[in-house]
Amino acid sequence: MTHPFEAAIDLRPGADHRLLGRTVPEYANMVGPFGGATAAALLHAIEQHPDRSGDPVALTVNFAAPVADGQFTIDTTLVRANRSNQHWTATMSQDDGVVSTATAVFGLRRDAWSGTEAVMPVVPEPGAVERSNGPEGVAFLQNYDLRFVEGRPPGDGIPRASSATTLWVRHAPGRVLDFSALAALSDIFYPRVYLRRGKPVPAGTISMTTYFHVDAAEVAELGDDFVLATAQGQQFARGYFDQTAQLWSRGGALLVTSNQTVYYKDSFGR
Amino acid sequence: MTHPFEAAIDLRPGADHRLLGRTVPEYANMVGPFGGATAAALLHAIEQHPDRSGDPVALTVNFAAPVADGQFTIDTTLVRANRSNQHWTATMSQDDGVVSTATAVFGLRRDAWSGTEAVMPVVPEPGAVERSNGPEGVAFLQNYDLRFVEGRPPGDGIPRASSATTLWVRHAPGRVLDFSALAALSDIFYPRVYLRRGKPVPAGTISMTTYFHVDAAEVAELGDDFVLATAQGQQFARGYFDQTAQLWSRGGALLVTSNQTVYYKDSFGR
Repeated sequence: MTHPFEAAIDLRPGADHRLLGRTVPEYANMVGPFGGATAAALLHAIEQHPDRSGDPVALTVNFAAPVADGQFTIDTTLVRANRSNQHWTATMSQDDGVVSTATAVFGLRRDAWSGTEAVMPVVPEPGAVERSNGPEGVAFLQNYDLRFVEGRPPGDGIPRASSATTLWVRHAPGRVLDFSALAALSDIFYPRVYLRRGKPVPAGTISMTTYFHVDAAEVAELGDDFVLATAQGQQFARGYFDQTAQLWSRGGALLVTSNQTVYYKDSFGR
Repeated sequence: MTHPFEAAIDLRPGADHRLLGRTVPEYANMVGPFGGATAAALLHAIEQHPDRSGDPVALTVNFAAPVADGQFTIDTTLVRANRSNQHWTATMSQDDGVVSTATAVFGLRRDAWSGTEAVMPVVPEPGAVERSNGPEGVAFLQNYDLRFVEGRPPGDGIPRASSATTLWVRHAPGRVLDFSALAALSDIFYPRVYLRRGKPVPAGTISMTTYFHVDAAEVAELGDDFVLATAQGQQFARGYFDQTAQLWSRGGALLVTSNQTVYYKDSFGR
């Protein structure tokens, strides 16, 4: 039986070198599929292109229109390559046009001085944190094991001073991590504005950029383990806020840094 | 007389609705033009498109190949629009092909709860900080008034524990700020790896994403004043590091948050 995440990013060759995919109910969000699954499918399309060389370094996905349930088409273009890097563009389309655009950089890592400057949050082990089932009506969250350390989704109407959320997360049912899975996990956070308003308000990611800091061998070593995901907003400005996020391995490796800009309304129905 | 930054982003209509620009010596970097000027020209091309609506919300520029001194062509495409947002793609090309790709989101800000969660660094006023002329051989830096508060470019070979740099910066000769100027200032920082290695090493930005948190009226209020620019790396991993940056107004408004991924080598000639 195919894992639901596998099904969500499964792509088959179509006419004119396009790739065909299909949304799956297990990765549905409140409207359309989980944006992280869209990002993962776009990255996966580039990964399986015969001209692809190296591992993902950067991925930007712009969510241009809601993705309808059903079939989608992905086109990929290798714009430029040099000895170290490849620059790709991609689009996801449905019957009524382009629904997402993406750019990606793939590259080859090499021996060079390395160091982590960000500091991993000090948190209890995942086994010591209670699992949250996630809100009903958000199908894709039922396919992750979520263990909130701070900043669980608020519903009491009390504004928080901080929009920070930190959680342990892994696929449920289990699945080994790969770059597509990390791209999706970059978008695992509910909108930061919820915490600042103390309750859900209309919000949706417009653009997400993810930087990968590990190569394929390092990702493979993660297996199907938990990663620590942490996110916070920096600026909420009249309808758009940003979010900066990190994904850490249990062993303390900074796997991914990711940023996104999110459209929101406040609670007054405007 | 045209301001050099104006000349660097000046675009004239060409055949097939393309826009033609030209690099200027005042915005030259060590190889080719300042990446910030490339980002600014791409944004400016979208800004002056007759179908453009709203202000920039997000801009991602991928630096696919070195830009040669001389003429370049920019193509812009409005991929999708809804009531609030426009999704654009753009490319910069020269004789040998595409040198940069970009995606951008433009949008309309509206009345909504707003708040700044990031904290502005506590720094002396620009008048109390010594102006730095910038290193010789980097022409574009001579066109900015740079006043380093922390993390000035190192040359002593002593590795720093922190890659943080904070500086006041404005155009010199003076020029009012606009979105193109802010896009360029997002890239004003020399490579963070210099601080961690204590000296310059080969490095170049591959992809930069900038989120704008102000509208045109708010930018106009800034005039030609200094902005406070601060940046730090999070992860340096075998040839690629990321940088997270903020631009603040003197009055304490968070104007821009920006991230980039940068290619680097260490000092051993590999």
